[in-house]
Amino acid sequence: MHPAPSAPRHDPLRLARAGLSRLVEPTDLTAMLLLAALGPVAALEVATGARPIGAREHPVLVRTAAEAGHGPRQVDLRRALARWAPRAAELDAAADLESAARAGAWFAVPEDPDWPAALADLGLFQPVGLWGRGDRRHLGFPTARSVAVVGSRDCSTYGEQVALDLAGALASRGWTVVSGGAHGIDRAAHAAALATGTAVPPTVSVMACGIDRLYPAANQQLLRRVEATGLLLTEAAPGCTPSRYRFLQRNRIIAALSAGTVVVEARWRSGAQNTAHHADGLSRPVGAVPGSVHAGTSAGCHRLVREGTAVLVTDADEVLELVQPLGAAPAPDRPAPASVADGLSDRDRVLLDALPLTVRSRPDHLCRVAGLSAREVLAGLRRLEERGLAEGTGEGWRRRR
Amino acid sequence: MHPAPSAPRHDPLRLARAGLSRLVEPTDLTAMLLLAALGPVAALEVATGARPIGAREHPVLVRTAAEAGHGPRQVDLRRALARWAPRAAELDAAADLESAARAGAWFAVPEDPDWPAALADLGLFQPVGLWGRGDRRHLGFPTARSVAVVGSRDCSTYGEQVALDLAGALASRGWTVVSGGAHGIDRAAHAAALATGTAVPPTVSVMACGIDRLYPAANQQLLRRVEATGLLLTEAAPGCTPSRYRFLQRNRIIAALSAGTVVVEARWRSGAQNTAHHADGLSRPVGAVPGSVHAGTSAGCHRLVREGTAVLVTDADEVLELVQPLGAAPAPDRPAPASVADGLSDRDRVLLDALPLTVRSRPDHLCRVAGLSAREVLAGLRRLEERGLAEGTGEGWRRRR
Repeated sequence: MHPAPSAPRHDPLRLARAGLSRLVEPTDLTAMLLLAALGPVAALEVATGARPIGAREHPVLVRTAAEAGHGPRQVDLRRALARWAPRAAELDAAADLESAARAGAWFAVPEDPDWPAALADLGLFQPVGLWGRGDRRHLGFPTARSVAVVGSRDCSTYGEQVALDLAGALASRGWTVVSGGAHGIDRAAHAAALATGTAVPPTVSVMACGIDRLYPAANQQLLRRVEATGLLLTEAAPGCTPSRYRFLQRNRIIAALSAGTVVVEARWRSGAQNTAHHADGLSRPVGAVPGSVHAGTSAGCHRLVREGTAVLVTDADEVLELVQPLGAAPAPDRPAPASVADGLSDRDRVLLDALPLTVRSRPDHLCRVAGLSAREVLAGLRRLEERGLAEGTGEGWRRRR
Repeated sequence: MHPAPSAPRHDPLRLARAGLSRLVEPTDLTAMLLLAALGPVAALEVATGARPIGAREHPVLVRTAAEAGHGPRQVDLRRALARWAPRAAELDAAADLESAARAGAWFAVPEDPDWPAALADLGLFQPVGLWGRGDRRHLGFPTARSVAVVGSRDCSTYGEQVALDLAGALASRGWTVVSGGAHGIDRAAHAAALATGTAVPPTVSVMACGIDRLYPAANQQLLRRVEATGLLLTEAAPGCTPSRYRFLQRNRIIAALSAGTVVVEARWRSGAQNTAHHADGLSRPVGAVPGSVHAGTSAGCHRLVREGTAVLVTDADEVLELVQPLGAAPAPDRPAPASVADGLSDRDRVLLDALPLTVRSRPDHLCRVAGLSAREVLAGLRRLEERGLAEGTGEGWRRRR
């Protein structure tokens, strides 16, 4: 029943995707075209220079590029091979898979049945695979019931509080909170989801570094808690450092894995805005939380609203109204302090305004003050009296507090 | 050269409009239809019951109503006459005009050459006249260069500061600030315009009470300063108290007298929102200032943005972008802290990310870390060096701070 010692320890497809994950940076266009045109195994063979691209394969590559809107000159395989060569020389995908397994991690590929279908919305730029930690059975979590809650690392205490409140309220209503595991807003979003979440998994952290790293160091304990009940995911190969480029590419996965994205705080330029634009590009709704116009930490949120990328949201109800399919669960009308004048006709309001608070007014005087007929005043006084808003005696009428 | 003692002291048209201003509440539909159908003099005669409506006049009234979208049943002249009768008995328009004059006030009518043309946008609900204080020559001020800055009476210190900043910046750029003379945001808007305004008049206050009153009492000094260099206006007859109904109707005049309206702070339900809806109904742009989601004082602003009535605005540039005709003066692109990576290609950014800060990296190592070819790394290092971002020695390369 055991495989023969000479049998490959990993299936070729998974091995090829793990190799590509190591070899190329996320969303490398030429690599993604090779993958789409030739499939993982042949793509890796060509990308590593193990063999030249075949005479029949090249037209497929060019056609794939054309279908994706790229001309033949943008498929510069020669330059790409030069770019990949230094890493190709050291490539050992089996070793990567084994070191990941030793670290308690797994590697999922689009061909797996539990691969999140929502990632297909990324098209050519779907991750070549996802390295993960946490219960693998969570990978198929319902992304239609998950919300990305993202924002600046250097958030304000206001932003942190809003992130805690929003993520907590969403998580307690059974929504999975997706974020990036960073300082600031991300950290608050994960923490609140861990504390109050009722969904399985309560929270998912999509990282920019290798799955064997817990970055930033200050969040190690938090990320271990995410791993314990939720998921840590990354497209970067084990050992990879989190570069600025990888952070920005990572954001597309956060956007794709959720029904919508909420930006809690973002500076005028920020990674959170980048996530918002990814979500918008994927036709996922985007919400942005307003704040003080004096706070640089909210400038990016205000920008997103002004540019029409995001809808202004102030609480979890408004977020759900945004991310749920139309009519699924309309946000309740906000309770507002009731006014005594609610439900009064315009004329009765005028009459109420005309009633004195202390002295008493006779109806004929009220007619002149309110600009109403005697009949309207008498009928109106009766209606106001019924509502407990006016009181009359032989001396006249006044407002009742 | 002097008029004969028996000659009327006021022209009949002005006298009739002053009478209507006393007789009917603002925007009283039947009265406005009478005025539009018969003109001021005949309208007042009919409205006071001095004579019945003529056999030829009634069809004109019904046609006017139909043109304004009202059926014949909505023109209930009998009920209206009963409503106006108590005030008609005491009507003395000449005395009103004289008491206003004694208080240093004047009465302007739509037939005057300096009547603000923008008020005609109110259609049927144009004020029957405006009582004013301040230099009458200011009445023809350019409403296309004026902005309404409005908001809650019970504003926060944040809202007050924003109102001072916004109104001050707009006024110093030659815009007239229109507001309602109330506590809170209105007060701050007027005060800032008085302090920094370069337009003539710097500020205009549209009140809900009679022109002989300065309401609220706490703003008396401020309103006297508005009178001294700007304008106080009201459609209410002398002696009128500011009722809730009159406040709400007054807001349509604020909206009509400005190129656009900015709501600085507003509760979920508030008069400032009412002004915003008037402006929106007049196709005037509306801006709303965001604030903390925890502040009830900003809830109405957020609501206006969410409902699409208002555009989110955070400073005077954005207000001007909103209220100025397209292309008149685009708001400058906001200065943002420059990033060292600005203008770098994606690949050079990746390379910059890969450069260590302290130890030095050799190009072959950078190729593997960055996923770039030797040629790309060497050319990229040269470009980064030229920008002062990288420094190389025989031992290798590192990032330069």
